[in-house]
Amino acid sequence: MNAPIEFIVTASDSGARAGRLKTGHGEIATPTFMPVGTRAAVKAMAPDELWSMGYRLVLANAYHLALRPGAELVREMGGVARFMGFGGATLTDSGGFQAMSLAKINSIDENGIRFQSHLDGAPILLTPESAVEIQEQLGADIMMALDECTPYPAEHRQAQKSLDLTARWAERSFAARRSSSHAIFGIVQGSVFADLRRMSAAQITSIPFDGYAAGGLSVGEPKEAMLEMAALSASMLPADKPRYLMGVGTPSDLLAAIAMGFDMFDCVLPTRNARNGSAFTSQGPVSIKQAVHARDSMPLDPDCQCRTCRTHSRAYLRHLYLSGEILAARALTEHNLHFYASLMRGAQAAIASQNFKAYASKVSAGWSRD
Amino acid sequence: MNAPIEFIVTASDSGARAGRLKTGHGEIATPTFMPVGTRAAVKAMAPDELWSMGYRLVLANAYHLALRPGAELVREMGGVARFMGFGGATLTDSGGFQAMSLAKINSIDENGIRFQSHLDGAPILLTPESAVEIQEQLGADIMMALDECTPYPAEHRQAQKSLDLTARWAERSFAARRSSSHAIFGIVQGSVFADLRRMSAAQITSIPFDGYAAGGLSVGEPKEAMLEMAALSASMLPADKPRYLMGVGTPSDLLAAIAMGFDMFDCVLPTRNARNGSAFTSQGPVSIKQAVHARDSMPLDPDCQCRTCRTHSRAYLRHLYLSGEILAARALTEHNLHFYASLMRGAQAAIASQNFKAYASKVSAGWSRD
Repeated sequence: MNAPIEFIVTASDSGARAGRLKTGHGEIATPTFMPVGTRAAVKAMAPDELWSMGYRLVLANAYHLALRPGAELVREMGGVARFMGFGGATLTDSGGFQAMSLAKINSIDENGIRFQSHLDGAPILLTPESAVEIQEQLGADIMMALDECTPYPAEHRQAQKSLDLTARWAERSFAARRSSSHAIFGIVQGSVFADLRRMSAAQITSIPFDGYAAGGLSVGEPKEAMLEMAALSASMLPADKPRYLMGVGTPSDLLAAIAMGFDMFDCVLPTRNARNGSAFTSQGPVSIKQAVHARDSMPLDPDCQCRTCRTHSRAYLRHLYLSGEILAARALTEHNLHFYASLMRGAQAAIASQNFKAYASKVSAGWSRD
Repeated sequence: MNAPIEFIVTASDSGARAGRLKTGHGEIATPTFMPVGTRAAVKAMAPDELWSMGYRLVLANAYHLALRPGAELVREMGGVARFMGFGGATLTDSGGFQAMSLAKINSIDENGIRFQSHLDGAPILLTPESAVEIQEQLGADIMMALDECTPYPAEHRQAQKSLDLTARWAERSFAARRSSSHAIFGIVQGSVFADLRRMSAAQITSIPFDGYAAGGLSVGEPKEAMLEMAALSASMLPADKPRYLMGVGTPSDLLAAIAMGFDMFDCVLPTRNARNGSAFTSQGPVSIKQAVHARDSMPLDPDCQCRTCRTHSRAYLRHLYLSGEILAARALTEHNLHFYASLMRGAQAAIASQNFKAYASKVSAGWSRD
């Protein structure tokens, strides 16, 4: 089997590294942020807009797409990227996260996760093998092994049981791959327990995955615990494979995680916050509904060159948001994703010029809070 | 007072005519369809997309904008076009239509329309004078005189009373204009009664408005009555001024109305139907939710060059619609507005080449129904 992806570290600066991830659907500069397109659509965005902002890799979800429209249909339509009309590559999450986020409608045993569809109650069984089969049908450039995303809080004993199951599922996931054109990543669990994170990392990295992810973070634990566990996980992941921190995070979380040596990220924050009227800016977060913006003719972010900031005032965006106009969600999402893309581009350049620490300090200084 | 707009008929073909409408915010080729941007936003669209599709004139609503964000605020922000970030011109409806559509929350007397805000119940009085003042604050290139949009059905006596009030309000509206940079159009009422339509047209055209509209149509009356009254109204409007048929209609309605000599149109159909999953195509309407589209890799309309048709399959659009993705509303709205813009461009070209009847027959033949 030829390697379905290739990863080259092109520069490193202390712990941070910049690189290139080559896939069958193009090359991605790292560190990279993946917009979340759960149902084969990044909410409120058109695929050419994602491309214009520089995104070359988006995330979709195997569980959601298996239920609707069905993985077989997506396969017929040429895979999830082509189905979406996106010119780049895709990574699919396996559905392991939904074992936690949709805990009320599933049960887990050795074999896999038994869901009742959140759409119509129909039963669906996700096993390590079926999750890989679905992701192959979806045509993901990068598949994720089925894991059990340990909920927070979890007792040590429960978290250990969970990571052991995840390790067995990782073996089965890796063995289940049928095609050489899809990479597969393993996922480290271990909740907020350092010994368990180490144990899980040892188990998962013993399998020759194409990349490795730290999962089970940003699920409710304190920020300090998240950062500590992320750093510990990163330190145990091999340097020659991409490292993916799942579900994280704020702009400052991303800078911290890049410094730990992570290469890939996904998070709903830029898109979900946008729909709630909240923008990330070079000067910190802006809540557009606030009355202070009612007559503000300035853009969301004077330092931003996105379409929203070139076109609309805060006053107009506030009006759109209060009026429930779809354009409010669009404009703020586009701005936030532009902000995240710029942050990643800035980080790549700073690492290449051995300047990452100064870059991180400089951009963070602009944020009053996030 | 210099003329705030200039209208030149450049070609005519039987009753249909093509022309150019010059405003302070650019020139508009007629016949023209105005996308509806009630709250200073065409639902689901960005202003540069409207521009790219060829739209140079959009409609906004004085009543809605007066309530939120307030006409004075829009004035401060440079007027509604600049507030929206739209590079073209705007026409504002006065709020007379809301006298009908929001009948439960208003009462009408000689002085004007007394609303209780649909947002917070606050009282707002729209008089002919205040409606003009608001529209001047909104910076509309074309303002509409306050009218009473006669509901359907109406008895002859009620319709006559209503058009007499509209005529008195038209005088007051015309007299209320304070600035030479805003055109103002009068509106003909008369429900479905030919004698009343004639009477109203005589009253309204006796005032030297910059253009004339037929109102009170497409409000529930049978299609035949609408077309008959529209034709009658058009025949009584002066040939040297733009003629605007308000609130109409389907693609075939538009072709019929162009043949009557109307120059301007607005309607929520392309935008509202889009959000309900319905597309206008060269082969007739397409309801994207239908199961027949589930595995259809064809675009909405094989003859269409819009972004949606260049990018997305029917299968994907159906998936977006069923998943409640914002992109469904966007993609279908963009397609429908592109369809309407193309229809108008086709009509302009056909009139210029004395070929309108053949054009109308040819495009109508493609529609199984609409």
